[in-house]
Amino acid sequence: MTYAAPLDDMRFVLNELCDLPAIASLPGYGEATPELTDQILNEAARLASQVWAPINQTGDREGCVLENGVVRMPEGFAEAYRAYVDGGWNGLSIDTEHGGMGLPATLATAVQEMWHAANLALGLCPLLNLGAMQALIAHADPALQAAYLPKLTAGTWTATMNLTEPQAGSDLGEIKTRAVRDGDRFRIHGQKIYITFGEHEMAENIIHLVLARAPDGPPGTKGLGLYLVPKFLPDADGNPGVRNDLRCVSLEHKLGIHGSPTAVMAYGDNDGAIGFQVGDEFGGIACMFTMMNAARIGVGLQGVGVAERAYQRAVDYARTRVQSRPLNGGKQPVAIIQHPDVRRMLLTMRALTEAARAITYYTAAQADTARRHPDAATRERADHRVELLTPVVKAWCTDISTEVASLGIQVHGGMGYIEETGAAQHWRDARITPIYEGTNGIQANDLLGRKLLRDKGASVQDLIAELRGTVFAGDFATAFTTALDDLQAATSWVLDHGTRDLDETFAGANAYLQLTGLVVGGWLMGRAAAAAGDTPFHRHKRLTADFFAQSQLPQTHALRAAITGAGASVNQFPEAAY
Amino acid sequence: MTYAAPLDDMRFVLNELCDLPAIASLPGYGEATPELTDQILNEAARLASQVWAPINQTGDREGCVLENGVVRMPEGFAEAYRAYVDGGWNGLSIDTEHGGMGLPATLATAVQEMWHAANLALGLCPLLNLGAMQALIAHADPALQAAYLPKLTAGTWTATMNLTEPQAGSDLGEIKTRAVRDGDRFRIHGQKIYITFGEHEMAENIIHLVLARAPDGPPGTKGLGLYLVPKFLPDADGNPGVRNDLRCVSLEHKLGIHGSPTAVMAYGDNDGAIGFQVGDEFGGIACMFTMMNAARIGVGLQGVGVAERAYQRAVDYARTRVQSRPLNGGKQPVAIIQHPDVRRMLLTMRALTEAARAITYYTAAQADTARRHPDAATRERADHRVELLTPVVKAWCTDISTEVASLGIQVHGGMGYIEETGAAQHWRDARITPIYEGTNGIQANDLLGRKLLRDKGASVQDLIAELRGTVFAGDFATAFTTALDDLQAATSWVLDHGTRDLDETFAGANAYLQLTGLVVGGWLMGRAAAAAGDTPFHRHKRLTADFFAQSQLPQTHALRAAITGAGASVNQFPEAAY
Repeated sequence: MTYAAPLDDMRFVLNELCDLPAIASLPGYGEATPELTDQILNEAARLASQVWAPINQTGDREGCVLENGVVRMPEGFAEAYRAYVDGGWNGLSIDTEHGGMGLPATLATAVQEMWHAANLALGLCPLLNLGAMQALIAHADPALQAAYLPKLTAGTWTATMNLTEPQAGSDLGEIKTRAVRDGDRFRIHGQKIYITFGEHEMAENIIHLVLARAPDGPPGTKGLGLYLVPKFLPDADGNPGVRNDLRCVSLEHKLGIHGSPTAVMAYGDNDGAIGFQVGDEFGGIACMFTMMNAARIGVGLQGVGVAERAYQRAVDYARTRVQSRPLNGGKQPVAIIQHPDVRRMLLTMRALTEAARAITYYTAAQADTARRHPDAATRERADHRVELLTPVVKAWCTDISTEVASLGIQVHGGMGYIEETGAAQHWRDARITPIYEGTNGIQANDLLGRKLLRDKGASVQDLIAELRGTVFAGDFATAFTTALDDLQAATSWVLDHGTRDLDETFAGANAYLQLTGLVVGGWLMGRAAAAAGDTPFHRHKRLTADFFAQSQLPQTHALRAAITGAGASVNQFPEAAY
Repeated sequence: MTYAAPLDDMRFVLNELCDLPAIASLPGYGEATPELTDQILNEAARLASQVWAPINQTGDREGCVLENGVVRMPEGFAEAYRAYVDGGWNGLSIDTEHGGMGLPATLATAVQEMWHAANLALGLCPLLNLGAMQALIAHADPALQAAYLPKLTAGTWTATMNLTEPQAGSDLGEIKTRAVRDGDRFRIHGQKIYITFGEHEMAENIIHLVLARAPDGPPGTKGLGLYLVPKFLPDADGNPGVRNDLRCVSLEHKLGIHGSPTAVMAYGDNDGAIGFQVGDEFGGIACMFTMMNAARIGVGLQGVGVAERAYQRAVDYARTRVQSRPLNGGKQPVAIIQHPDVRRMLLTMRALTEAARAITYYTAAQADTARRHPDAATRERADHRVELLTPVVKAWCTDISTEVASLGIQVHGGMGYIEETGAAQHWRDARITPIYEGTNGIQANDLLGRKLLRDKGASVQDLIAELRGTVFAGDFATAFTTALDDLQAATSWVLDHGTRDLDETFAGANAYLQLTGLVVGGWLMGRAAAAAGDTPFHRHKRLTADFFAQSQLPQTHALRAAITGAGASVNQFPEAAY
C-alpha cells in the first residue's frame, strides 16, 4: 500500500497548536500565506505518496551496493531525489538570501514528515542537507557560503555529517582524524564510519562536513575543527571539478534503512583530502552542534513519519483482513478492526503518533519564535524551550516510533513477520532512530545534565508553570494534573539529588525523559481536545486525547518511582555481577 | 560471542522457587536425583554453548533454501540436531514407556531454555516434537503410538503442527483442508501455511499433525479432526517407506528465525495424502489444544532464552567497549558498563529475564504437580494454575523478550544496528514469539475470557490469595502489595463489567495480562530475594528484586487505569475514523 499524508492532522497541529498564522507573520516569513501553506502541503503530499512511497519497499529489498568505488542506489531513488530537487523542496526553510524559500521551520517540519513517512531511507538525504546548510549559514565565512550554499540549497549537491570513528562514537573527544594546514586550506587524513549518504551518484557533488583534529589544538573536543570537504573541488565556474582525495571504503550491512548508503569513508589516502575550515579554528564542536541539533529534531520527526506510515498500513490491513466472529453475537467473521484488542492497538498507535507529531511541530514553532520574534525576552524563552525539548523530540518520538511499528506488526499477526507484507520494514527502519544522532541515552543525559541541572531547573520550571496554567476540564484535567505533579516531584528529586550522587540520579535519566515526553505530549493532546469546533475531526481528537489520558499518562507514576527509587539499586549492583 | 547457560540462576529457580526435589519425588519421577539433575544441566549447557550457539548467526545469514522440493538447511544445523538426538535430549520429559527418560517437565524446561537461547531457530524443531508427542500420548490409539512415538521420542523423526490456512489463522473454524475416508485411514487434501520445519532432511521422516475437516462433520471448529500425516509411510519394519502425497510448495521470507524453514505445505495434490486419525472423529481441536498448550509454554520459554542471550551479548559488549569518561571525575574513558544509563539498561534486561524465567519454570512445576501429585485436590488446583498462567507465560515472556532484545541493541549503540554484531538478530528472532502459537492478543483474550470470566474469577482469586499470603519485608512488601491491590481492583472491575460490556472489557485484555505478569513475576522475584542465604548470588538476587519493585512493579498503576478507564474510548472511537 502507499502512503497518504495526514493533511487534516498536520493542518490542525500547525494552526491550532503552533499558531502557524502568527509564526508566518513574524518578520521575514511574509510569504507564508494560508493559501501558500495549503498549496505546499498538498504538493508535498503528492510527491511523497506518488513518487517516494512506492519505492520504499523495493529500496529496502535492493539496498545499496558499492562496486568499484561507485554506490548503486536502489531503482527509482535518483529519480525521486531529482523530483524533490526540481520541486524546490530542499530550500523550503532556507532564507531567500541563500537561495531558499524562506518559509517557517514549522511548516517545513510538516513537509519533512512526509518524506520520512514515505521513505525513511531516502529522507535521510534531505535531513542531512538541512543540517549542513544550517551549520554553514551559522558558521561559515561568506566566501565559503557563496561557493557552496546555493548548490546545497538547491539540493543539486548533497551533504553529509562526519563525526564517528571506531573509537569515537558518543565521545567525540577521541577523534583521531586530523587536519594539516596547507596554505589557506587544510589536508584531512583519517577514517570516518556511519556516514549516511557518504557516497552516491544522485547528486553532482557531495559536501562532507568533517570533524577533525585541528593543527596544534589541545586534546579532547576543544581541539576539534569542522572542515568542509567536497567530493569534487569546484572549478573556476563553481562546477564540480577535480576529484578530492576521499573515497567510500565500504557500506554497512544494516538492520534497516537499506535504501540509505551508510559508508565507511577514507580521507587522505594519498596527499590528503582538501578541506576548508568552517567557523573558528577550534570551534568544530560548536558548529557540529548547530548541525546536530537540527538533525536531532529531524530524527525525532523521522520517528513521527515512520509511526504514521506503520499506523496507516496497520489500519489498512485491519479493515480488510476478515477473521473471527465479534464478541457480542454475530455469526459471521468480521474485519479484525472490529475486535477490541486490535482497536486498542490501533488507537495506541494513533494516539502516540499524534502526540509525537504535536511535540515535534510545537518545538519547531518555538524555534521559529526564537529566531524571528521581535521581542528579545520572547526569543530567549523560546530558545530555552527548544533546547529543553530537543532531546525529548529526538528520544521520545523515536522510542514511540519503534513501539508503534511493533504494534503495526502485531496487528498483522503472522503476516507481520513476512517481509513482503512491509510492516516489518517499518520496525527495522524505525529502530535506527533511537540510536543515531546521539543515542537516546545520550539525549536523556543531555536533558538531565545540560538542560535541567545546569540551569538549576529554570527551563523545566518555566515549562511546568506554563503547563499548569493551562486549564483542562473533567477527567482529562485530573489525569493531566497527576502526571504534571509526577514531573514536578521527579524534577525536585533530581535537582536535590543531582548534586549529591550523579550516578544514582543519572540512572533515572531515561525515565525522566520519558516522563517529560508523556507530560508534554499529554498537554498538547489536551490542548487539541480543547480546540474549538464540533466536527467529527474534533470529536475524534477528544476521544484520542481521552485515551491518551487513560492509558498513557498514568505511566508517569511508574516513571517517577523509577527516577526516585531505582537509581540506588542500579548503583549498588556490582559491575562484575552482570 | 557464544552463550553460557546461566546455570546458577537455573538451579536456584528450580530448587528455591519450584522445589525441584519435591517435584522429583512425586510418583514416577524417581530418577531425578540431584546428581542426575546437575549432570543433565551441565551436559545440556555444553551442547548448547559448543554446538548450537556457534551456528546461530551463520544460520541467520544463510537461511533455508528450497530447491527441487528439498530444503537445504544452514551449515551445521543437521549435525547440531543429530548431536541433540544422540544425547537423548528429545525424550527427556517423555515417560519411559514411550522411550523417554521420564524426568520432570520442570527440569526439561531449564534444558529447553538452553536450546532456545543458543539457537532460537533450531530450537523450534524440538519444541514442535514435544507438542506432537504430548498430543499423541494423550489422544492417539495404542497402535498409532507404537508406530510413531518411539521414533519421535528418539527424535530421529521430527514433527510439525499444521493449523493455519490463508483464511484460517486465529479462527480455526474457517479451515478448509479436508479429510476423506479411505478404509481405516484418510486422504487429506488442502494447503497449510506457516508450517515450521515443514520440510527438511535433518531427520529420516517428518510427522505432520494436520487439523482438517472430518468427513460429514458440522461446520466450524466442531467438525475438525486431527490427522497424523507422515512424509514417508512406515514400511512393514516401521522404517520410512513410500513417499506420501504431500510437498513443500515454498518457504516464507521472514523477519527473523531464518534458520527455521517456514513452509507452505500442499497435501493431496494427487490421490490425497494418507493420514491417520488422532483422537476422536471430531476431536481435532481438543487434540490441538494439548499440542498448543505445550507449545505456548515452549514459546514463552523461547522468550526467556532469547532474552538471556541478548542480555549476555550486551553485558559482554558493555564490559569491553570503552567510551566516555565517568560522571564522577575520572580522566580516562571507561568501559560503558560504568555509565549509569547503560547499567540501567543491563539491570532492566536482567530483571525482566529473571522474572520471565521464574514464571515459566514455576508454571512447569505446577504442570508436573498437576500430573503426578498423589492428592487429587492438589492436582486440580495446580491444573487450574497452569491453565491460568499458560497465556501469561506465552505473552508476558515473549513481550519482555522483544523489549530485552531491543535494549540489547541500544546498549551496542551504532554497532547494534549492524547485522554482523549479532544483537539485531536476537531482536528480529524474538519478534516472532509474540505472534505465533496464538498472538499475544489471543492470549490476553484467553486469559480474560476462558480463564477469568468463565470461572467467575475463582482461579485468579485463588492466585491472589496465595500471593497475599506470602509475607515480604520492607519497601519490597509495600511495592508488591500496591501491585497486588491493582490486580485485585482490575480483576473486580473485569468481573463486574465483563458481563455487561464485552467490547469495553476486552479492550483491556492486554493490559490485564501485562498486569498479571508483573504481579506474578514480582511475587517470584520477592520469593527469590527472601530465600535463605547470604552469598553474593543471594545479594544480587535481592538487588535485582528491589530494582524490579522500584522500576517494573509500579507499572501496574497505569495498567489498572488502562483496564478500568480506556475501554470506553476504544469502544467509542469509530471504525471509519482510523
